[in-house]
Amino acid sequence: MTRNTAILLIDCPDRKGLVSGISTFLYDHGANIIHADQHRDNHLSLFFMRVEWSLDDFDLDEEEFRRRFEPLAQRFGLRWRLEYPSEPRVVAIFVSKYQHCLADLLHRHQTGELPCRLGLVVSNHEDARPLAGFYGVPFHHVPVEAKNKAGAEAAQLSLLQEHGVDLVVLARYMQILSPAFVARYPRRIINVHHSFLPAFTGARPYHAAFERGVKLIGATSHYVTEALDEGPIIEQDVARVSHRQDLEDFLQLGRDLERVVLARAVRWHLERRVLCYANKTVVFV
Amino acid sequence: MTRNTAILLIDCPDRKGLVSGISTFLYDHGANIIHADQHRDNHLSLFFMRVEWSLDDFDLDEEEFRRRFEPLAQRFGLRWRLEYPSEPRVVAIFVSKYQHCLADLLHRHQTGELPCRLGLVVSNHEDARPLAGFYGVPFHHVPVEAKNKAGAEAAQLSLLQEHGVDLVVLARYMQILSPAFVARYPRRIINVHHSFLPAFTGARPYHAAFERGVKLIGATSHYVTEALDEGPIIEQDVARVSHRQDLEDFLQLGRDLERVVLARAVRWHLERRVLCYANKTVVFV
Amino acid sequence: MTRNTAILLIDCPDRKGLVSGISTFLYDHGANIIHADQHRDNHLSLFFMRVEWSLDDFDLDEEEFRRRFEPLAQRFGLRWRLEYPSEPRVVAIFVSKYQHCLADLLHRHQTGELPCRLGLVVSNHEDARPLAGFYGVPFHHVPVEAKNKAGAEAAQLSLLQEHGVDLVVLARYMQILSPAFVARYPRRIINVHHSFLPAFTGARPYHAAFERGVKLIGATSHYVTEALDEGPIIEQDVARVSHRQDLEDFLQLGRDLERVVLARAVRWHLERRVLCYANKTVVFV
Amino acid sequence: MTRNTAILLIDCPDRKGLVSGISTFLYDHGANIIHADQHRDNHLSLFFMRVEWSLDDFDLDEEEFRRRFEPLAQRFGLRWRLEYPSEPRVVAIFVSKYQHCLADLLHRHQTGELPCRLGLVVSNHEDARPLAGFYGVPFHHVPVEAKNKAGAEAAQLSLLQEHGVDLVVLARYMQILSPAFVARYPRRIINVHHSFLPAFTGARPYHAAFERGVKLIGATSHYVTEALDEGPIIEQDVARVSHRQDLEDFLQLGRDLERVVLARAVRWHLERRVLCYANKTVVFV
Repeated sequence: MTRNTAILLIDCPDRKGLVSGISTFLYDHGANIIHADQHRDNHLSLFFMRVEWSLDDFDLDEEEFRRRFEPLAQRFGLRWRLEYPSEPRVVAIFVSKYQHCLADLLHRHQTGELPCRLGLVVSNHEDARPLAGFYGVPFHHVPVEAKNKAGAEAAQLSLLQEHGVDLVVLARYMQILSPAFVARYPRRIINVHHSFLPAFTGARPYHAAFERGVKLIGATSHYVTEALDEGPIIEQDVARVSHRQDLEDFLQLGRDLERVVLARAVRWHLERRVLCYANKTVVFV
Repeated sequence: MTRNTAILLIDCPDRKGLVSGISTFLYDHGANIIHADQHRDNHLSLFFMRVEWSLDDFDLDEEEFRRRFEPLAQRFGLRWRLEYPSEPRVVAIFVSKYQHCLADLLHRHQTGELPCRLGLVVSNHEDARPLAGFYGVPFHHVPVEAKNKAGAEAAQLSLLQEHGVDLVVLARYMQILSPAFVARYPRRIINVHHSFLPAFTGARPYHAAFERGVKLIGATSHYVTEALDEGPIIEQDVARVSHRQDLEDFLQLGRDLERVVLARAVRWHLERRVLCYANKTVVFV
Repeated sequence: MTRNTAILLIDCPDRKGLVSGISTFLYDHGANIIHADQHRDNHLSLFFMRVEWSLDDFDLDEEEFRRRFEPLAQRFGLRWRLEYPSEPRVVAIFVSKYQHCLADLLHRHQTGELPCRLGLVVSNHEDARPLAGFYGVPFHHVPVEAKNKAGAEAAQLSLLQEHGVDLVVLARYMQILSPAFVARYPRRIINVHHSFLPAFTGARPYHAAFERGVKLIGATSHYVTEALDEGPIIEQDVARVSHRQDLEDFLQLGRDLERVVLARAVRWHLERRVLCYANKTVVFV
Repeated sequence: MTRNTAILLIDCPDRKGLVSGISTFLYDHGANIIHADQHRDNHLSLFFMRVEWSLDDFDLDEEEFRRRFEPLAQRFGLRWRLEYPSEPRVVAIFVSKYQHCLADLLHRHQTGELPCRLGLVVSNHEDARPLAGFYGVPFHHVPVEAKNKAGAEAAQLSLLQEHGVDLVVLARYMQILSPAFVARYPRRIINVHHSFLPAFTGARPYHAAFERGVKLIGATSHYVTEALDEGPIIEQDVARVSHRQDLEDFLQLGRDLERVVLARAVRWHLERRVLCYANKTVVFV
């Protein structure tokens, strides 16, 4: 549910008076705070904050806010973002053949769990076309072959631009994106890693986990960086297994984990709850 | 580890300007904030806050703080507590025959996990005397029989007073405390309920859970109120079971859950992380 | 994936020689065992067994098996069922307005996770018609009003008969089935209880859990018996919550739990892994 | 609780008639089976079985069993072990400075959870002497320095031999055992790995997990093989963390996980529930 609120996200070196300065500024302009959370990394002396307030009695519009808040930001050395949840982000979902994450995201969006506009589904296969169609989301088939990868990425990027996409969700998209592509959407590409990072980073991780005889399998959602599978982790979850589960069961349990772990990450990102630093995340839930 | 810090706990109706007022007050007196967390119950319009700051550059001693903070508190209608972690609380542990929670708490205290002084162990049996003795905690045997309950409680209360006890931990203490006793330590008696509240509230809850064929068993730690087992829940946890576990396994898994769930509650209470309202808790971890 | 196998399910008082008798019978007729599991309830002296074997070298067809196995069954007082997974069961899904469980079951069925034929979707609302249609499952709208409940159930039962339904799945179907209806499908109606049985059995259980300030919420799938919500539990799961989650979050987390917990129960039932006794289940996974 | 039972453990290539042959043998000699479980690895075509039966009406003593069972074993190519739980195993616990796992094992043993005799505690420090003494277990200080490792291991091995030790438990023992030492106790040394294998295999794994920003931390218990930390996994568990937990919290949560995960592995080993193959385990619980 989008609300008539504004969200301020802060990320800066910790200094005395930060909270006092920011909260007094908001109070002076009539902010009725709905949610506020903060975090101090005492080791690195960093400060993180998320404040959401109702715009009902607030006396600054976006432009004025930016103008008047800037001096405060400069005084404290703040890195900050101002966001309006009522302006929904546009999301592109990339998918290959496995559709469990896609089906899950489409259903959640329809239910109202994901505050965004689904701009398009992009796939290197045709399989997902009917599903996207049922939910009324434009589907684009962009074939990717070894020799035309650059061309395919160019086509994808042009689609993203055309639809004004803010966030790319890799919902079991089995192609590796080039560093150039990733650099275009820094911390705006979310992937789900089948199996439990940082273990089993290679191909076919469930097979590897099965071979190793683990007693728990997991899934990880993370931002994509140039270093494959090593971007900041947003969410993880596990399920218990034993010798009674065969590889097929591992894969199925894995699918259930992947859906949940990816959906949480996407939702939290869309709700502006995730901040990144030092290759890790602060998730204000 | 106790730190040279102060902690301010706030609990009041939500009003604009609360955070601004409080954080500005702290800043003006040189507080270097180490941890701050807040919560709004938007349904009941309540506000909760926990701030911990280093006393190193802080220019108010306790008395001065109380004097100067009071006007602010009155303006905002704050209910507040100021606490100094360096003044460790005194804890009494009540135990009957099962010693798993007691052994766990004693070991954790020795390790430094529980910031408190263990004043005494009270039991209606002699069994735990050697264990308390090994860890150097005074042990008092107070027999409880059906016809002398009032006398036993009087003896217990006098021991608590004598040792200056702040918190009573019921570590599998199998006697029911009278409302009069409970009223003497409001929200300062923590119990662990074997099995998962609010299910299976009667006697022998693991037997009841086993009979019912549940697939998860749990434990709950909570503050004791006059209404038995219905006080504010501090922590809960569960473990998976199947038909392969018999009643004996349920009991053993239950013991593991009880230890962990009780220890967390005690630690969070001692670290002043728990606030109560409307028969529930806010736990700032 | 259905396999060319047979499954024998045994449920009887425990007696010496049971396993020897049964396994020797199977061996004598060429059974190549793929999966075997057994359970003894030592308290009630009951024995449960599930054996699945390949039919490739097996020399008995169904009729012959029944004829030849009967003397052994009588000697040991066995209650037994012989099942052929290659004959898929027919499932009816009942749903009201919330479609998250329905969407999940339909997608899993399409993926091949649920070895059955989806005969029809029955609803007291029109909402789910497009979704059922997309997956190619017949949809029947059977309105249920206070004064025509008997008539509605008669219509439902006639649909079930017409489609040869073996299993009824209540996928968030918000009407209470009459004892007469339940008696027609003993241990063949699976329900998902939003929230964690046996706690919060009333209406709006997540609201009740939220009011109570629990730290874990859960969901339970179970067979429906005349005693509402008190039938044998098949599966349960929980998710951690804190004061940071509001009621809306409880409901959303609950939906995720419900989907998974219901899907597991349905799958295990279809794979003939569930045996019932004494109002509990043995689940051979 | 030790019972007057025998346990047969089987591990062999799968063949038709195995269960029939074994169960008929047991039946013919009056075995009253209390627990039986089996597993087929359909991929590797291996068969595993654990049968436990009461000796009350059983007509073979150990010697006779061995003589009469051997022809059957040869016919089916069985690898088998016969065990009598009433003959408790002798356990040595190795510990360094952190005593949380040691304290836990000692308490569990006293409670009757661990069916064994605790032969001795061995440590490269003096710290644990009082704790071992309180529980009445002989304590041996064997200093280990870089230049005398071989000598220390010789002393340890001689202590193990002297006490007739069957199982070595590394309860946070921070020295690496030589391959020669390990070879003396194949699959009879159990270690707990702080953090979640196979991730973070190096030194200070919780630090590494904290740096990486994981959302779950875990612990793993496993048999020690020459390949450090790569032996068969017996048990694993995890706990949820967020940015709110600092490194100290990670370490404390880790200690709780280590205790539970190690205790389960030791108990299951002592109850003869663990079989190894292909660098993994079958755990019959």
